Amino acid sequence: MAHPGDLSELDRLIAGGTVHAADVVAIIGKTEGNGGVNDFTRGYFTQSLMALLSRHLKEPAEQLIHEIPCVLSGGTEGVMSPHYSVFCVSEGEAIPAAGSSLAIGTAFSAPLPAEDVGRRAHVDSVANAVRAAIANAGIERLDDVHFVQVKCPCVTVARAAAAITAGKTPLTNDPNKSMAFARAAGAFGVAVALDELKPSDFDDASLLSDFSIQSPRASISSGVEVESNEVIVLGNSPHWAGPLRIAHRPMIDALDIGAVIDVLADLGISASPQVSAVDAGCIASVLVKCEPDRRGKIRGHRHTMLDDTDINAQRHVRGAVAGLVAGVIGDGRIFVSGGAEHQGPDGGGLIAVIASREGSR
Amino acid sequence: MAHPGDLSELDRLIAGGTVHAADVVAIIGKTEGNGGVNDFTRGYFTQSLMALLSRHLKEPAEQLIHEIPCVLSGGTEGVMSPHYSVFCVSEGEAIPAAGSSLAIGTAFSAPLPAEDVGRRAHVDSVANAVRAAIANAGIERLDDVHFVQVKCPCVTVARAAAAITAGKTPLTNDPNKSMAFARAAGAFGVAVALDELKPSDFDDASLLSDFSIQSPRASISSGVEVESNEVIVLGNSPHWAGPLRIAHRPMIDALDIGAVIDVLADLGISASPQVSAVDAGCIASVLVKCEPDRRGKIRGHRHTMLDDTDINAQRHVRGAVAGLVAGVIGDGRIFVSGGAEHQGPDGGGLIAVIASREGSR
Amino acid sequence: MAHPGDLSELDRLIAGGTVHAADVVAIIGKTEGNGGVNDFTRGYFTQSLMALLSRHLKEPAEQLIHEIPCVLSGGTEGVMSPHYSVFCVSEGEAIPAAGSSLAIGTAFSAPLPAEDVGRRAHVDSVANAVRAAIANAGIERLDDVHFVQVKCPCVTVARAAAAITAGKTPLTNDPNKSMAFARAAGAFGVAVALDELKPSDFDDASLLSDFSIQSPRASISSGVEVESNEVIVLGNSPHWAGPLRIAHRPMIDALDIGAVIDVLADLGISASPQVSAVDAGCIASVLVKCEPDRRGKIRGHRHTMLDDTDINAQRHVRGAVAGLVAGVIGDGRIFVSGGAEHQGPDGGGLIAVIASREGSR
Amino acid sequence: MAHPGDLSELDRLIAGGTVHAADVVAIIGKTEGNGGVNDFTRGYFTQSLMALLSRHLKEPAEQLIHEIPCVLSGGTEGVMSPHYSVFCVSEGEAIPAAGSSLAIGTAFSAPLPAEDVGRRAHVDSVANAVRAAIANAGIERLDDVHFVQVKCPCVTVARAAAAITAGKTPLTNDPNKSMAFARAAGAFGVAVALDELKPSDFDDASLLSDFSIQSPRASISSGVEVESNEVIVLGNSPHWAGPLRIAHRPMIDALDIGAVIDVLADLGISASPQVSAVDAGCIASVLVKCEPDRRGKIRGHRHTMLDDTDINAQRHVRGAVAGLVAGVIGDGRIFVSGGAEHQGPDGGGLIAVIASREGSR
Repeated sequence: MAHPGDLSELDRLIAGGTVHAADVVAIIGKTEGNGGVNDFTRGYFTQSLMALLSRHLKEPAEQLIHEIPCVLSGGTEGVMSPHYSVFCVSEGEAIPAAGSSLAIGTAFSAPLPAEDVGRRAHVDSVANAVRAAIANAGIERLDDVHFVQVKCPCVTVARAAAAITAGKTPLTNDPNKSMAFARAAGAFGVAVALDELKPSDFDDASLLSDFSIQSPRASISSGVEVESNEVIVLGNSPHWAGPLRIAHRPMIDALDIGAVIDVLADLGISASPQVSAVDAGCIASVLVKCEPDRRGKIRGHRHTMLDDTDINAQRHVRGAVAGLVAGVIGDGRIFVSGGAEHQGPDGGGLIAVIASREGSR
Repeated sequence: MAHPGDLSELDRLIAGGTVHAADVVAIIGKTEGNGGVNDFTRGYFTQSLMALLSRHLKEPAEQLIHEIPCVLSGGTEGVMSPHYSVFCVSEGEAIPAAGSSLAIGTAFSAPLPAEDVGRRAHVDSVANAVRAAIANAGIERLDDVHFVQVKCPCVTVARAAAAITAGKTPLTNDPNKSMAFARAAGAFGVAVALDELKPSDFDDASLLSDFSIQSPRASISSGVEVESNEVIVLGNSPHWAGPLRIAHRPMIDALDIGAVIDVLADLGISASPQVSAVDAGCIASVLVKCEPDRRGKIRGHRHTMLDDTDINAQRHVRGAVAGLVAGVIGDGRIFVSGGAEHQGPDGGGLIAVIASREGSR
Repeated sequence: MAHPGDLSELDRLIAGGTVHAADVVAIIGKTEGNGGVNDFTRGYFTQSLMALLSRHLKEPAEQLIHEIPCVLSGGTEGVMSPHYSVFCVSEGEAIPAAGSSLAIGTAFSAPLPAEDVGRRAHVDSVANAVRAAIANAGIERLDDVHFVQVKCPCVTVARAAAAITAGKTPLTNDPNKSMAFARAAGAFGVAVALDELKPSDFDDASLLSDFSIQSPRASISSGVEVESNEVIVLGNSPHWAGPLRIAHRPMIDALDIGAVIDVLADLGISASPQVSAVDAGCIASVLVKCEPDRRGKIRGHRHTMLDDTDINAQRHVRGAVAGLVAGVIGDGRIFVSGGAEHQGPDGGGLIAVIASREGSR
Repeated sequence: MAHPGDLSELDRLIAGGTVHAADVVAIIGKTEGNGGVNDFTRGYFTQSLMALLSRHLKEPAEQLIHEIPCVLSGGTEGVMSPHYSVFCVSEGEAIPAAGSSLAIGTAFSAPLPAEDVGRRAHVDSVANAVRAAIANAGIERLDDVHFVQVKCPCVTVARAAAAITAGKTPLTNDPNKSMAFARAAGAFGVAVALDELKPSDFDDASLLSDFSIQSPRASISSGVEVESNEVIVLGNSPHWAGPLRIAHRPMIDALDIGAVIDVLADLGISASPQVSAVDAGCIASVLVKCEPDRRGKIRGHRHTMLDDTDINAQRHVRGAVAGLVAGVIGDGRIFVSGGAEHQGPDGGGLIAVIASREGSR
C-alpha cells in the first residue's frame, strides 16, 4: 500500500484472476493513522475497498460494507509496514484432508446505540455476533476457535452529545475512554460466546476493572467509522481444506518473546533467533494484541507510556511489541493492535499466526 | 528514577558507602523526554547530578560539569525504563588478571562555536577528544576500543540567530537538522580517531551524504544543553582489573535480532530466546544506536517513520528497536538512542553490552 | 462535516436544488488531519467529494478530479472547525452591475515529475497554470486578482526513492522539506504570473532563501495526494454579477490583528472588537496564510514553535493565528493554512475575505 | 529565558541591585514543556530558581521551596514566549495613596496524600490555604481579590500505585484525569474561600460534573512536581502602595475577544484593535485560563480538540486563546494556562491583567 486509499495491488490480483472478488469474505489490515478517535485512514481504506469490490461485483458499496468485515487497526509505529490480508473462501470438491485447515466465519450485529457502548448490552450484542460467526465458519468445537476479531463502535464527542440531547446517558463523552470500554465489552462478549465467562459472573462495573476476566482469543478494535459490531472468527476445522492453519498463544507482557517462539513452534516453524527466509514465506498472517501495563511497570521497572502527554500510550506499546515480533519474524508486515484490555493477560496480550503446513516440514 | 531530577538512589548508594563520589568518572543514561531539541530532561538530570556530586565532593557543580561526562539520551519510548549507569573507577593493587577487564577513559573538547557544528572543525574537535579519552583509559590497541560515546552540541534557532548576528554562517538554523549534522560529525571524528577513516577521504559534503563512511563503535548523541564535545571511551584492557567486560556488534537494520544474540554470545551469555534471570543479573549495561532507514523501507517493505508529522522518526525507531532488544534481554533498562547516522550500517546501528565474566560460565 | 469523508450536507443541498452539481467549479476547505505528509484526510475528502459529484453528474470521478480543483488544508488546530466552501458559477443574463463582483477561474497544470518539485520547472508550471486560471476567470487587470490558491504536489520518501531509481535527483527526500519547497515554488509562480517578479530576478537558490521575494496574493498548499498543480484564482470583475466581493491584506506577523480589521473594513464590515452577528452572516469565506517566524522570535521575543519535537511548527502557528482571526470574526469556520513561505511578509502571511455587499451598509 | 533552567536574567537583576532577593515572594511563569504529567520543565525551572535564591539568600533551597510559591504553567504553544514574572514586596514608609494598589499574599497547605487528590479533603485544604493567603495579603474585602493562583499536586501512575499498595484508594490512576480533578478541587477551594460557594452545596460527585459551580477568580494548575497546594492571592488594597493595579473578567468562550478589551478598559488601557506600544509598556502581567469546550462545539460549530489523539486538547486551546490575547496585547509574553475546569464559564475561562496606573492616562 502506498497510502491508506491505495488498493491497486488487490485490483491487480483481481484483474489477473488470482483473486476472485466474489470469494472475499473479510479483510484485516494495518493503516498508517494514529489509531485513535481521529484516525480516518481506516474509513478511507474501507471506502476505497468497498468502491473497488463494488466495481467488480456490481453490487452497491453500501450493501457490501454490511457483508464483508473490514477490520483495520490504525498505527504502523516503528518497523510496521502498512498492509492488509484478504481472506478468500472458495467452494471446492470434498478433499479427504490429512487434518484440519483454516476455517473462517463472519457476522455483523445490529447497529449499536451510543449509550450502549461499553455496557452489558454491548457485551450481549458482541456475544451473539460471535456465535453467529462460529456457526458461519462451521466450527463445531469451541476449542478449535483460535482468534476472534471484533471491531466495535465507540462514541465521539459529537455522538455522545447527540445521545445526551436524545435523553440518553452515554458511559462517557471522552472518545479515548469510550474506545477502551468498547474494547472491554468486545472481549467480554467473546469470552461469553466461547464459554470462558458466564454472564452471571460479571456486571457493568467489571469492564476495565476486573482484569482477571480475559479471553486469550479475543482481539478487539474500536473506531469511529463503524456503527455495528463486526466479527471475524478464525479457527481450524476438518471440514475445511487448504494449506493454512492457525495457532495462538497468550503474551504475559510486552517482553514475552517466548510466546512468539512458541506460537511459531505450534505451527512447526522455528526461529533461532529469526525465522528463516524460506519459512517466512510460509507465514500468511501475524496477529498481535498488546497493552501498556496499567500498573506503570514492566517486570518491576517503571515505564513511561501512560504518563506521556505527547504520544498516546497505545502508539507507544504497538511500536515496542511490533519491534519485538517483527524482529523474530524478520518482516514488518504484521498486525499489532493496541488496546488489549481483557484480551489475554493484563499488561500483555496475545499472538496468533496463520501459516501454511509446509512450515512443518 | 521517579523523574529526570530524581537522583535519590545514587544519593543512597553514596550515603551507604557503596559508591564513592570521588570514583564517579562518567554517567550514561536514558531520561524520559522526547529526545529532541526541546528535551530539557537531560539538562534537568545533569543539573541534579552535579548538585549531588558537588554536595558530596565539596567542589562547585560548574567545575564538575566539565570533568565528568554525563551523556543522556532522551526518550524512553515503549518498554524502556528511565535509568542511568554510573561508571566508577577506583585505584587498587595490581592484580594478575586472567585477561582483560573493562577500561574507561573520558575527555572534553573546548566549547564548539555554533558555526562549526556539523563541519570539519567539529570532526577534528571530536577526533582529538576521542584520542585524549583513549589515552586516559590507558588502552593501547585501537582494536580494544568497543564503544565511544560522544555528546555533541547543536544549534537552536536562538543560537543560530546569535551566530548570524555575529557574522557567522551556521550550517543550518533548523535544530533537528543541526542535531543530525552534529551526530554525523561525531561519528566521523570517532572513525578518524580509531584509524577507520583518513582525514583526506572525506569533506564537509560527506556528512549525512556518504553513508559508506561509518564507525561501528561510534555512539553519538546531540543536545542543546552542552557546548563542548564530551567523550567516554569504553574498551577492554589487561591493565584494568574488575569483573566486567565489553563487546559490540553492528546491527544491519532495525530487525537484526541476530546482532543482539551474537553480542551476548561474545560475552558468554545465551538467550534462547530470552536471557535467563541469572544471566540477566550479570548484565551491567546495554547500549544501542539505531536509525529509521532513510530509504523508507526495511527489507523491502515501506515503513512510515519518516513520513509521520505527529511522532518524530527517532522516537519511532527507538521504541521499535528497544522493544526487540528488551525482549531478548528481558529488561527495559536499556540505553537505546536514535540518530545513528554513520554509526554502524546505514539503516541499522550497533549494540554494545557490558557484563560480568560470571556470564561466561 | 462530521468527519473528513462526510459530504452529506452538500448532498442535501444538491438534492434540495440549492446547489446545482454542474455549477461546482472549485472547493476550498479545512479537514481535521495534521496537515503534514501523512495527512490522508485530504485524499479521503477528495475521494468522497468526487464520488458524490460523479453520482450527480454521471461523469467518472477520475475525470472530475482533473476538472474541479479541490484545495484542502489539513489541520483544524484549536478553535477551527472543519468545513468546506463550494464555489459555484452559473450562467445568467447580463445585469448592469453597480460595480465589480467576485470572479473565479481555475486551471490544472500537467503532472509534475518528483524531481521538478521545488525547482524552476515547478515555478514555470505554476505560473502558466495561474495565467490560464486568470484567463478562465475573465479578469483583465492583474490588480483585480486578490487571491490565488495553488495546490502543489510534493515528494514522499517513496516518490523520492522511485525518482532516484529512475536516475533523477529530487531536491530532497525529506517530505516535510519537500512540502516547503513546493510551497515556495508555488508562491514564485504566482508572483511571476502576476508580474510581481521577473523570471530573471531569481534562481533555484532563491527558494526558501530570499524572503524579500513574496506575493501577498499567493496561497499555496502542498500535499501527497496531488500530482499536478491545481489553481484557483479569485478576484473582482465588472463582467461578473452576484452579491459577493473579495479583498486581501498582507499580515506582518502572527500578531497582526490590524490586518484582520483592515481587510474587513475594505469590505465595509466593522469589528469592534468582534464582527456583529448580522455582519458575520455576510461573510462567505475567510482565507489566511501564516508562518512560524523562522528567526525564532516574534516582535523580539523568543517563540518555541520551531524547536518543538512533539508538535509540528505549522500546527502551532495555524492554531495561534486561527485563534486570533476567529476571535475577530466570531466564528471558527475559517481557512487558516500554514506554510506561508514567500506568501506575504516573512514571518507573517496574508488574509483574504469574501463577503456580500450588504456588509457595506 | 533561553531554556527552562535559564534564570540568568533574574541573576543579573539581583546582581545589579534592581531586585532584592529577599523581596521575592512569588513567581508565575510559562515554561516550554507540554503542560502534561510528563512536563519536567516546571521542576527544572523551580530547581534552578531555588538554587539561585539559595545562593543569594544563604538559605537552603529545600526550605525556600516551601516558602516561595513558584507557579509554572507548561506549554508555550504558538505565539507564546517562555517567561516568568517575579513578584517582589518591600517594606516602605506609609504613603498616602490616591487609591488601592496591587496586594499579594501567599500560603502553602500541608502535603496532600495521593488518595485525597480531587476530593473534598483537597477542596478543604485549598480553601484553608487561600484564606491564609488573603490574610497574608492584608486584603479585607473579598471583592478586592481578583486572582487566586493555586498549584495543586496530582497523582502519577507511580504515586497511585504506591497509594494502592498502602491500602488507599486514589480517585484515578490516570495522570491526565488526576490533573483535571486536582484543578477542579482547587477551583472549588477558591470558591469556598471567596464565599462564592457554600460547603454544603456540593459533594465529591460535583467535581468535573456540575459546571454551574465556578469561580471567575480561580486559576488552578496541577503538576507532578508539587506535593502541597501552593497559593498566590492577587488583589487591590488601600494598605499597599505602588504603581500597579489588577483587574479581571470572565471569558465566555475561546472566542471572547470582548473580555480582553474589557479587562484592559478596566485598567484604563485601550486596544483598537491592539494596545499601543506605549500602553503595552504599562502592562506587567497577563494571566489567562482557558478550556476546550467539553461539548465539542464553539458557538455551534464542531471543534476537534477533544478528538485529537496526537495533540493534547489543553495544548490546542492554549495555543488558540494565546493567539487571540497576544494579538490584542501585541506581545507573546502572556500566561495562558489550560485546564480551566470550574474556573470561569464552562468552555471559557478568565483573564486578569496587572498594569501600572500610567495606563489610565
